[in-house]
Amino acid sequence: MTSTDSRFRVGLLGRGTVGAALERLLPEQASRIQSITGMRPEIAGVLTRGDGSFKEVLSASDLIVELIGGIDPAREYVLESLRAGRHVVTANKQLLSRHGEELWQTAREHGVQLRFEGAVAGVVPVIRVLQESLAGAPVDRVHGIVNGTTNFILSEMARSGITFSEALAEAQRLGYAEADPSEDVDGSDAAAKMAILARLAFDTPVHLDQVRYEGIEEIQPDDLEYARELGLGLKLIGTAERIGDALSVRVHPAFLYPGHPLATVGGPFNAVTVESESITEITMSGPGAGGPQTASAVLGDVISAMIPPSSMPATTENLEMIQDVISAFYLHLEVADEPGVLAQVAQVLALQGVSVKSVVQRGLGEQARLVMVVHPVLESRFHAAMELIAGLDVMRARPRAIRVLEEEF
Amino acid sequence: MTSTDSRFRVGLLGRGTVGAALERLLPEQASRIQSITGMRPEIAGVLTRGDGSFKEVLSASDLIVELIGGIDPAREYVLESLRAGRHVVTANKQLLSRHGEELWQTAREHGVQLRFEGAVAGVVPVIRVLQESLAGAPVDRVHGIVNGTTNFILSEMARSGITFSEALAEAQRLGYAEADPSEDVDGSDAAAKMAILARLAFDTPVHLDQVRYEGIEEIQPDDLEYARELGLGLKLIGTAERIGDALSVRVHPAFLYPGHPLATVGGPFNAVTVESESITEITMSGPGAGGPQTASAVLGDVISAMIPPSSMPATTENLEMIQDVISAFYLHLEVADEPGVLAQVAQVLALQGVSVKSVVQRGLGEQARLVMVVHPVLESRFHAAMELIAGLDVMRARPRAIRVLEEEF
Repeated sequence: MTSTDSRFRVGLLGRGTVGAALERLLPEQASRIQSITGMRPEIAGVLTRGDGSFKEVLSASDLIVELIGGIDPAREYVLESLRAGRHVVTANKQLLSRHGEELWQTAREHGVQLRFEGAVAGVVPVIRVLQESLAGAPVDRVHGIVNGTTNFILSEMARSGITFSEALAEAQRLGYAEADPSEDVDGSDAAAKMAILARLAFDTPVHLDQVRYEGIEEIQPDDLEYARELGLGLKLIGTAERIGDALSVRVHPAFLYPGHPLATVGGPFNAVTVESESITEITMSGPGAGGPQTASAVLGDVISAMIPPSSMPATTENLEMIQDVISAFYLHLEVADEPGVLAQVAQVLALQGVSVKSVVQRGLGEQARLVMVVHPVLESRFHAAMELIAGLDVMRARPRAIRVLEEEF
Repeated sequence: MTSTDSRFRVGLLGRGTVGAALERLLPEQASRIQSITGMRPEIAGVLTRGDGSFKEVLSASDLIVELIGGIDPAREYVLESLRAGRHVVTANKQLLSRHGEELWQTAREHGVQLRFEGAVAGVVPVIRVLQESLAGAPVDRVHGIVNGTTNFILSEMARSGITFSEALAEAQRLGYAEADPSEDVDGSDAAAKMAILARLAFDTPVHLDQVRYEGIEEIQPDDLEYARELGLGLKLIGTAERIGDALSVRVHPAFLYPGHPLATVGGPFNAVTVESESITEITMSGPGAGGPQTASAVLGDVISAMIPPSSMPATTENLEMIQDVISAFYLHLEVADEPGVLAQVAQVLALQGVSVKSVVQRGLGEQARLVMVVHPVLESRFHAAMELIAGLDVMRARPRAIRVLEEEF
């Protein structure tokens, strides 16, 4: 499909923040790219919601960049482009986490590339590293901070003691959160990214529906305050890990001890750690979003597509997906300030096999707050204990729990 | 050169720590690699100092892995392999930083690949990220910790207050330093790596001889102790940065303020930050050395060579190399404990345009120690001031200076 002259024609679907940034970046870098690849890239056509025809953009292009987002019509456009023998570069994590296998198979069948570095962690090159650098290293775990919006919000809440809503408004004011932030703050954006990373790391099909996720909307400022007393910081953590012959992929808020490599990742940054017995670990961090950053990741993919043929191999594994894993927890209880409360709570925890690591208790007139960290335990056991605790007469509010990441379980 | 059956024959030159680790890793991963590439890799021959013939290994192989190290005979073997149409994977930073242009040109002329991820920062995929992910992003600066031995030694000195020699002995005991550690501790190993990174990042030929380097042999425990009072930590930092239309590549010990992204990189880890206006920055970290880690990076290169053809393009830039740059400094002075000493020192600094940021003075009987941090200044001006200070009557020992990295100059 490459034109016979030295031009390389890029068709652009979508002109939002990333599309507009790519439209600026590509001509700026065209000479440099020509010196690397021997071909000069140019934008051959742009399709926007109000303007342009997909068929015309497709027929004028050697490669299609899909930046529309969402499932329809992005899925049809990507499929048609691949079937027409065009390489496709996309940053669409929702599409890949729901229909990835269909798209990758279509790309393989038509001998073209489907690249997607921009879909996960912005400019942090985790896709390439998993696909290429670590192709010879069996991965044990991938985890990290893959949503910049929520990391900014949590950083601000911890720094200023403000509420979730206040921090969200600040993020929107600075352009780190969209007008409708629900996919970011409810964890589904991070879940889609973790589904894609898990697919690559563990060579097994992973659909977004198989990823368990929780968001950060329920986090209270005083959770962060008590956590500080316990020496903990809060992050929204995505994890994909092999457990025996099965796989767990999940996203949830979690406290980190200060020595944790992800503890210092602040503001809108992303960071991903890949662990493998043969390499110990690699951590990569950088800005997680932003038009120019994602456009740069997309352009890196365009350049790669201009050089070598490579395809996403079919999966050869089919690991079982685990839903119940082992975690440490922070537990926040509002209780009557009377004798024997701690004993009651401790007894319920002990009954479920939950062992307490540290406790902070503080009186507040007629009530008291009991904040504790418990040692790692099967999550179902912990939640059973929490339900029992919620039913105790001495409770004055719903218990709240947040996971605690330990360096090693 | 690829054999017509589905085998991919790898010839191994050298069976040291990395070579032996690769000999174990490759058969372990052969099935996995076959599923990715369609070909099954196998070790077709091994050349060691005492055993094997280069010609025989070459003729039996589709790809040569060079892990002999040093210049001779590694250079001849790599050249002959490339001329014979074989891809080459090497981890030899000395060879690439001295003869890289000749080798890359030979690879281009013969349409084969010369890959070298293992030569810099162990398993941290900085070569691939610079060559591929950031191909569309003009780099402003690459800097980081690229020698795990010295980082381990400095971490131990800071942690335990021990001397350089004691920490070196500890590193040797744990296998983080070789019996002859001179290339590590004098900075030349890091300099070779920075020459390679600068070549890639700035598309301009860079020879090891053009890299200014200093080691860590002269670092004293009390430098680390005073620095702690000033809130600083010490690292051996490699920097390659564009300054106007010229380039500075250098390696030296430097103090970092606690917020610096490299400040938390401890023990034998490496970390590299790549800065570019269009992406802000990417930081990558991981174990910097070790047989299995470097073998994993080498194997990643072997797999890449099995898939796509790609060559190192000829450089198109030819930036001037700068030797005199701007730095902040820590200055350690042993002086007579008498009135007016600080005034004399401050006057000399002021004459050279060196401005003091913070001072710690402490009496020690007849002597005193004056430890200060000065604001960024052209290094030649600072060294001129230091020479003048060394000549003052009140000085009781040679002044010592260590650079301080600030987040922004």
